[in-house]
Amino acid sequence: MTDSRRNRPYEQQLAAARKFIEDNDRFLVVAHVNPDGDAASSTSAVGWMLERLGKRFVLVNEGTMPKKFDFLWGFERMLALDELPSEERYTCIISVDCADEARIGQVKERFAADAKLLNIDHHPTNDSFGDVQLIREDAAATVEILYDLAGTLRLPVEGELAAAIYCGLLTDTGGFRYSNTTPKVMRIAAELLAGGVEGHRLAELVLEKITYAHITVLKQALNTLSFNEDRQISWITVSQDDIRLTGATSEDMDGLILYPRNIEGVEVGLLFKQTDEQTVKVSFRSNGKADVAAIAQRFGGGGHVRASGCTLKGGLQEVVERVVKEVGQSLR
Amino acid sequence: MTDSRRNRPYEQQLAAARKFIEDNDRFLVVAHVNPDGDAASSTSAVGWMLERLGKRFVLVNEGTMPKKFDFLWGFERMLALDELPSEERYTCIISVDCADEARIGQVKERFAADAKLLNIDHHPTNDSFGDVQLIREDAAATVEILYDLAGTLRLPVEGELAAAIYCGLLTDTGGFRYSNTTPKVMRIAAELLAGGVEGHRLAELVLEKITYAHITVLKQALNTLSFNEDRQISWITVSQDDIRLTGATSEDMDGLILYPRNIEGVEVGLLFKQTDEQTVKVSFRSNGKADVAAIAQRFGGGGHVRASGCTLKGGLQEVVERVVKEVGQSLR
Repeated sequence: MTDSRRNRPYEQQLAAARKFIEDNDRFLVVAHVNPDGDAASSTSAVGWMLERLGKRFVLVNEGTMPKKFDFLWGFERMLALDELPSEERYTCIISVDCADEARIGQVKERFAADAKLLNIDHHPTNDSFGDVQLIREDAAATVEILYDLAGTLRLPVEGELAAAIYCGLLTDTGGFRYSNTTPKVMRIAAELLAGGVEGHRLAELVLEKITYAHITVLKQALNTLSFNEDRQISWITVSQDDIRLTGATSEDMDGLILYPRNIEGVEVGLLFKQTDEQTVKVSFRSNGKADVAAIAQRFGGGGHVRASGCTLKGGLQEVVERVVKEVGQSLR
Repeated sequence: MTDSRRNRPYEQQLAAARKFIEDNDRFLVVAHVNPDGDAASSTSAVGWMLERLGKRFVLVNEGTMPKKFDFLWGFERMLALDELPSEERYTCIISVDCADEARIGQVKERFAADAKLLNIDHHPTNDSFGDVQLIREDAAATVEILYDLAGTLRLPVEGELAAAIYCGLLTDTGGFRYSNTTPKVMRIAAELLAGGVEGHRLAELVLEKITYAHITVLKQALNTLSFNEDRQISWITVSQDDIRLTGATSEDMDGLILYPRNIEGVEVGLLFKQTDEQTVKVSFRSNGKADVAAIAQRFGGGGHVRASGCTLKGGLQEVVERVVKEVGQSLR
């Protein structure tokens, strides 16, 4: 509700979250739309803890949880919105990994008028919605906060809870590779491994498995791999035909842009994705020399210094030429 | 020399290694031929410690250290064998990450007749060569042992030493993904990060950077991606022409086999690499259902249950058909 609550010391926030859970029964646990690994893992972890505490609960998401997370505890109980009884309304809500209410999506329509909400999240952009906040911006993932919450609730971090927390850490840190891989993340991981979590199996399942659509769209995209003259800019394109023929979803196209970006000598990697005949989504990744937030802004987009995006009108080839020219100028 | 020395308690081995270093001056530090990340990082780490201790030393490898490790301390001092003064002979040797003397390669020719050798390694297959052994099979990487040795030598694990150790852990655990990612590995990583190591930068440098030759040979290989009828077997081929045209070295082809293996539903991934008109190297990777060591053995090769290889005579297409048929039968 107010920012003051969020600015409470972390221990107080944990205690308030504990009280919210202990004082109530029958929770609706919801993660953000288009759930990623941390959203799925956090849903599983909260469910596991509520089950241990003998509470009743429903796990829900606006859409369907990606099948790749089917090894998580409670996966079969994670309902899509259209699987919820339509007349049911819920009064105790726990949102996980949602930076604002909009991220809850249409699940919000099932909240009772007098619903109370516990907001557990790690995004710096969290707007402190809800009635009780458990928000820690310097956590690498929401599961890191849930690890602390388990301690506050005096629940052992073991078995499927430990696996869910490890899975959320793995996915939100890109396999312990991003800059959010803090000493605390590694200490928690060490403890979970010591407790028996099969980290290598989880890494295989959530980081290494690829879909058939991913490999076919990757193959198409690599056939378009191009460079500017000095090879500081590299790009790939995905046409509407590619998307249609491969059946690739946007999840299947995750990570494509890393191929041009990671090539030695490349300063800026670009991905051009044709969304309709006259519209192209452009993603920019910089290795540090170019400020791609500034470049994307010039095209009406935005983002970060090293990762940004914009959407342009025009044919695929025409957009490629315009953008590559602009990036080239900024590298000079 | 003898296995009994190797079976000394770890603390005694560390003390013996310390004595070897303290009692001598002017060392030749050598890692295995075709050095990988742990070999390069261990060379750097030992050099850093010797420098701190005011010792003289030469860092050498039979070949050239891969350029991707050029950020390591002392990289510019890591000589190839042909850069060593040819008349020079060395009496104090420290070998790192070498399971047996053969792994030292031709550098051995520069050892003095009365040379003494300290063997620091983590391979279970280490044959305890040398005069002083510091061997710990359950270490994920040789740098993990060097972390302990720094403690024994009362040297702070900081700066470039910390970065070298992190780099060796990263590479030998596949970015904290393999089953050798123990709680101890993660605790050391936590400590190194807390001390200021930029783990995400190191991960980018050693795990994510790809060569131009890699991306071009990957593109060629993906264009050959094939499946058997039930899609449990997937394979890619690299012809002699592909190797010639892309200039790919065997290092550039590292990881290619993971593409077919990681596709959902695939049980066995195969890579067929044509080494000459009538010879094909086959690599097998299993996700658990098939024992690919047994399959490779049937073709005169060998390896592990989940990772194996063999070399067959015949044309590329002919070998593909023979091997896929055999794998198919073992999956039935």
